[in-house]
Amino acid sequence: MSRFVLLPLALLACVPGAAQTPQPSDAVEADWRTIPDDELLVMTLGDDRRVVIRLAAYTPSHVANVRALARARWWDGLSVYRVQENWVAQWGDQTEKKPLPTGLTDRPAAEFEIAAFTPAVRMARPDPYSTASGITADGWPVATNGREAWLTHCYGMVGVARDALPSTGSGAELFTPIGQSARRLDRNYTVVGRIIEGMRHLSALPRSEAPMGVYATRGEDAAIVSVRLASDIPAGERPRFQYRAADNSRFEAAVRLRENPRPPTVSLGGASVCDVALPVRPAP
Amino acid sequence: MSRFVLLPLALLACVPGAAQTPQPSDAVEADWRTIPDDELLVMTLGDDRRVVIRLAAYTPSHVANVRALARARWWDGLSVYRVQENWVAQWGDQTEKKPLPTGLTDRPAAEFEIAAFTPAVRMARPDPYSTASGITADGWPVATNGREAWLTHCYGMVGVARDALPSTGSGAELFTPIGQSARRLDRNYTVVGRIIEGMRHLSALPRSEAPMGVYATRGEDAAIVSVRLASDIPAGERPRFQYRAADNSRFEAAVRLRENPRPPTVSLGGASVCDVALPVRPAP
Repeated sequence: MSRFVLLPLALLACVPGAAQTPQPSDAVEADWRTIPDDELLVMTLGDDRRVVIRLAAYTPSHVANVRALARARWWDGLSVYRVQENWVAQWGDQTEKKPLPTGLTDRPAAEFEIAAFTPAVRMARPDPYSTASGITADGWPVATNGREAWLTHCYGMVGVARDALPSTGSGAELFTPIGQSARRLDRNYTVVGRIIEGMRHLSALPRSEAPMGVYATRGEDAAIVSVRLASDIPAGERPRFQYRAADNSRFEAAVRLRENPRPPTVSLGGASVCDVALPVRPAP
Repeated sequence: MSRFVLLPLALLACVPGAAQTPQPSDAVEADWRTIPDDELLVMTLGDDRRVVIRLAAYTPSHVANVRALARARWWDGLSVYRVQENWVAQWGDQTEKKPLPTGLTDRPAAEFEIAAFTPAVRMARPDPYSTASGITADGWPVATNGREAWLTHCYGMVGVARDALPSTGSGAELFTPIGQSARRLDRNYTVVGRIIEGMRHLSALPRSEAPMGVYATRGEDAAIVSVRLASDIPAGERPRFQYRAADNSRFEAAVRLRENPRPPTVSLGGASVCDVALPVRPAP
């Protein structure tokens, strides 16, 4: 295997800005925007495995519940109890017996759709799940059917698990796609965030072959030590991240490069909105 | 978490035929076709973790090399040496120093494209990477731009790693996408097969944070005990599998149901060719 050659692939898969010489698709300092502390959810699994979730501003009722659950330390001592091959990892209370904290909206109205389709950069081609898709100025993948708009269930996005009735998700049980992006969940589940650090701590968990990938025994679960909003962590220990904004020609150039890579790579002329790199970095 | 309710999701993700009462989308016995023994590649990792790959009939030069490598027991004692988060797991000889067996075509002509686009079932909508896609009668995902046709780099497909020159892949180094399907590799890499059993043994391997996800030390590698064609395994120990053929109204109904699920699930009217379940089962 030649490292020399696969390196460009790695760059495509990771941070365009890592190229040797500045490219039109590279970010400049002004493109990096700090994520507010109360939009960072820090989940610590056993052995100090840290998973950081950026919360979305587009589904406020469910995100408010997620904040309330974190502030009540509700997830502490619970677990990742479901890891289904090429589907999802899911965490919360597998027994469904732990009372929800007071002040929580038990069953907020569904937020499967968001207010409007306002991408800063649109994908060149539609995909099978939508008529248009793109990345918002603040770095979220979105799609539309021409009427409704929604956050897309790309790999690593965080959704709200629920019962049969579409409005029964409280935000206490969360999941993330760990295989092929779960776009068929779009408009059927509420998306509350995206994993921006430590996805590997969920994606590499042992798969369960029990029904639905729910671990057959609690001993298989990955224990959740704590879940905190960064804003509730002492300033000195608080992680801070920046996202790469999409409201500029450099991000658009990065998307176009993904859709039309340079020779000798054969260009297919398009890419899925879930195939766009959404870089983050620790705040300097 | 309600098991009752997530069950339909699990069925969508797994085997449509597992429904309680027969549905138009269910397979009948005649839909199950046996995979020839010399189209099954059995890779055994340490701790008896078995990964079974179905070889494709569409890229014969590279598949001939894969068979020759297996018959020479070339992979025995080598390893899975690269596991890059949301990208690929790759195996073979990380040192690139092990001589290839005689009788191998060192650098066969690229087989990025296949002879023709002949799906038995076409997806309802195009995707960003192609103008049309679908599933062949013998159960392979394919796409076209109206001129060339190719096997798609869906999650779990097996591709031939190579150097910069498009024609330098021998088949000795293989990879499989372990995250979002790697469709941007379509027409840039040769696809030789698909993992039909034990994908979890690759998808759940620890991710490496070293450049390109290549494990920094050989001690991190997942050892390959052996790789054999099923046809070279004693008949009594030989695994046998059947795939669900797509040349029938039942498979088409399953695809349409994936594209247009029943209420209360909101239908998006389409699905990616990588989002179609391609069931296999042990031969009765």
